[in-house]
Amino acid sequence: MTSLPTTRVLQLKREGAQLFVTMNDPTTRNALSATMLADLEAVLAVTRDDRTVRALVLQGRDGMFCAGGHLKGALAGAAAATGAADPVHEENQRGGRLLHQLNRHPMVVIASVDGPAIGGGLGLVCCADIVVTTPRARFALSETSLGLTPAQIAPFVVNRIGLATARRLALTGARFDGAAAAAIGLSDHHCESPEHATATVERLLADIGRCGPHANAVTKALLFEVAGIDRDDLIRRAADAFTACLRSDEGREGIAAFLEKRPPSWAGAA
Amino acid sequence: MTSLPTTRVLQLKREGAQLFVTMNDPTTRNALSATMLADLEAVLAVTRDDRTVRALVLQGRDGMFCAGGHLKGALAGAAAATGAADPVHEENQRGGRLLHQLNRHPMVVIASVDGPAIGGGLGLVCCADIVVTTPRARFALSETSLGLTPAQIAPFVVNRIGLATARRLALTGARFDGAAAAAIGLSDHHCESPEHATATVERLLADIGRCGPHANAVTKALLFEVAGIDRDDLIRRAADAFTACLRSDEGREGIAAFLEKRPPSWAGAA
Amino acid sequence: MTSLPTTRVLQLKREGAQLFVTMNDPTTRNALSATMLADLEAVLAVTRDDRTVRALVLQGRDGMFCAGGHLKGALAGAAAATGAADPVHEENQRGGRLLHQLNRHPMVVIASVDGPAIGGGLGLVCCADIVVTTPRARFALSETSLGLTPAQIAPFVVNRIGLATARRLALTGARFDGAAAAAIGLSDHHCESPEHATATVERLLADIGRCGPHANAVTKALLFEVAGIDRDDLIRRAADAFTACLRSDEGREGIAAFLEKRPPSWAGAA
Repeated sequence: MTSLPTTRVLQLKREGAQLFVTMNDPTTRNALSATMLADLEAVLAVTRDDRTVRALVLQGRDGMFCAGGHLKGALAGAAAATGAADPVHEENQRGGRLLHQLNRHPMVVIASVDGPAIGGGLGLVCCADIVVTTPRARFALSETSLGLTPAQIAPFVVNRIGLATARRLALTGARFDGAAAAAIGLSDHHCESPEHATATVERLLADIGRCGPHANAVTKALLFEVAGIDRDDLIRRAADAFTACLRSDEGREGIAAFLEKRPPSWAGAA
Repeated sequence: MTSLPTTRVLQLKREGAQLFVTMNDPTTRNALSATMLADLEAVLAVTRDDRTVRALVLQGRDGMFCAGGHLKGALAGAAAATGAADPVHEENQRGGRLLHQLNRHPMVVIASVDGPAIGGGLGLVCCADIVVTTPRARFALSETSLGLTPAQIAPFVVNRIGLATARRLALTGARFDGAAAAAIGLSDHHCESPEHATATVERLLADIGRCGPHANAVTKALLFEVAGIDRDDLIRRAADAFTACLRSDEGREGIAAFLEKRPPSWAGAA
Repeated sequence: MTSLPTTRVLQLKREGAQLFVTMNDPTTRNALSATMLADLEAVLAVTRDDRTVRALVLQGRDGMFCAGGHLKGALAGAAAATGAADPVHEENQRGGRLLHQLNRHPMVVIASVDGPAIGGGLGLVCCADIVVTTPRARFALSETSLGLTPAQIAPFVVNRIGLATARRLALTGARFDGAAAAAIGLSDHHCESPEHATATVERLLADIGRCGPHANAVTKALLFEVAGIDRDDLIRRAADAFTACLRSDEGREGIAAFLEKRPPSWAGAA
């Protein structure tokens, strides 16, 4: 059994073959900051080849799952000079690689969502094998309302809920709850309370406990091969699209409006 | 802001960032005639690069959305000599290109369906980002009941509702209503009345109004790239399949039976 | 009209354009034994180019659809020497080819499920164009609970219910009934009784009877082309994965535990 890494904004709890990974960074509402990305990367790296970890439960706490990309970090990057090593482009690719790794992590990943999962937070959810929600779960692909684009998230959303629903959600930025998530196939188990969600996760862990750990890892890899998914080139192209949006007039106006708590210049009925 | 084209069977109404496109050709039940195709092509061409148009609402009127392909036009073509420039093959490809362009149109496309959308009419619906239906909505992939094949429509149906449901609907030709359309993910918002549908469209337009127009266009293009869709070669091959069916014994019998208002020779329980 | 083959564990009944194929091998619970595969191959071969057969109804009897792979046959093969002509690998590929052929069979295939359809039995169901279930229908991807992998089945499960749901079902091995199958899009018509299911199949056969047989065959082939599915290479790679699992410590332990009616060494909450 591998020893767990030291993390700063993730709480890790190992219970037998289960690893509970709790995002706990209230100052950023569990945003995908550089610190959060580093912590998640460390957890995935150390568990990847450890078949004694058979399930990873990703959750938030205190009614918050993950508020999405770390806008202040992106802004700081955007203020820097562009160039071969554009920091925004680099950080955006890093987020894409993290989602790609989480999606293909060889053990079963359960996302237990008891609060908002917005933008990149919704991306995390879409990378799980099983999604459990409570009445506090909230989702949105809100990037376009800031003049940005959910570029790195898009492949995982499309694979999870299909192209048609992804188009609708991305192009309206609409917020929706766990019941609506269940209706579109995003939530597998929408529960009436956090207690019910906890019991559901326990039942799922018991089911997973009956499956061979190596057989599960082989099967998960095979399902991706069967689905014909190969995303490596897309990560760079997604970063191109995100970075261009962030540096466009629209992206600059969107973020300025967000920080000044006013509607952007384009807002109003379409 | 671009000026709108002159159209013969489409009524165009611009309201701010919205363009309402109303099919109005009662003599053909809004069939995809050469005139209808030309009008739709003109609207798409003039709006494609105009980010001041942020949503396009496609609808019918008087309880009719679109009856599908223009059978009389196809028959006239079929009577002509075949050859390098087979008019049936050309017209069929033209329909496929129109659907392809509508599907990828850079603004949000809403289909508001308050009546039959059959064959190619269902194809139009499947190309929209968001589908709203009323109790009068009716759908069918009826081509095979005429000995024909929904060749150009197939990619858009598969992308909208998935291969499994597409197989069932295409191979049974079954008619279904808006509630059934909602159950299979074809209708995003099934409404109890036309008034409710109108209010739903207005709410969606308000949501779209909060999204950056350029960000939405970038995002829509990205979603297609992510889904790995590339259809160009398929348009010609779909036209091959359609034309071969139309000229087969079965296709000739199917159309003759349709015109003579009798069942085709093969009809009866499978 | 082609004459039907002689079969040992399939009962064949031709009624006009319909062929009812009833699995009847109570000693193996209709497992996909070498005999069952040979019978199914013979039926598909003789009907493939016969457009007078317009629908094939695949069903079990006495409350059993198909218990899945024939474990005893696989074990006998596993005991034999490995090598260029590993019998387990060969037999596994044979199952994959059968599913591939059933999936693309040019007439409409209806699976009428009134009992368990487990592992490879669920694979058969996923290859049908239309699935009808009764309250006795039961489903599971149970391979991983034996330390094995549903390798040949995976492509058809993914195409039928999508990657996200396939991940969840394969990695938990959970059992589910017809109502749950309808909720995930596996069952098209969940019926309250066997009589209701029979009437539903009759109604579907009447719908199919209105469609041109040649047009249906062309359309079915076109839908696969549109979906961009090409599986030939996958059959060998799936057999590689299955065979490796069967010969691994985990696979050996899983099957031994199954035969000794005890939990395998890994069982317990994940």
